[in-house]
Amino acid sequence: MTWRVRVRILPRTGLLDPEGQAVEQALAALRFTGASNVHVGKAIALDVAAPNADEARAKARAMCEQLLANPVTEDFDIDVEPAGSA
Amino acid sequence: MTWRVRVRILPRTGLLDPEGQAVEQALAALRFTGASNVHVGKAIALDVAAPNADEARAKARAMCEQLLANPVTEDFDIDVEPAGSA
Repeated sequence: MTWRVRVRILPRTGLLDPEGQAVEQALAALRFTGASNVHVGKAIALDVAAPNADEARAKARAMCEQLLANPVTEDFDIDVEPAGSA
Repeated sequence: MTWRVRVRILPRTGLLDPEGQAVEQALAALRFTGASNVHVGKAIALDVAAPNADEARAKARAMCEQLLANPVTEDFDIDVEPAGSA
């Protein structure tokens, strides 16, 4: 079975996030008020073949730990749903 | 009230996504099997001050349309939840 896995990777809270600061300043320059605490990271979507959702999630977690995310500076969370449902 | 808004921006389906292809090849090189249809985009998290969740979402949509996403090549989706709940 194929699962649609969506990974969100963001800089760990407390670490410097210059891209987030740049976006926050750009939003202020565009007169968007009330935006704060902006953080910018990566979104990754992929199809994973696995017998069940738990195994798909475990595969995705291994991918994050070994390739997609920097374990020192980034946190990630993983959504798994049956492919084709969204 | 403050809302935690999380935006996911991905290349529009069907458009060339060289970063996604690179990640897909890197996963294969690391012996991850069963990963396909990989797409890489941006994840943005921010706090938005707004009287209710609908207005926070509308603000975030305007930010995406004017700054965060490229309306020609990217699609975005927006999650809104009360700040501090996650």
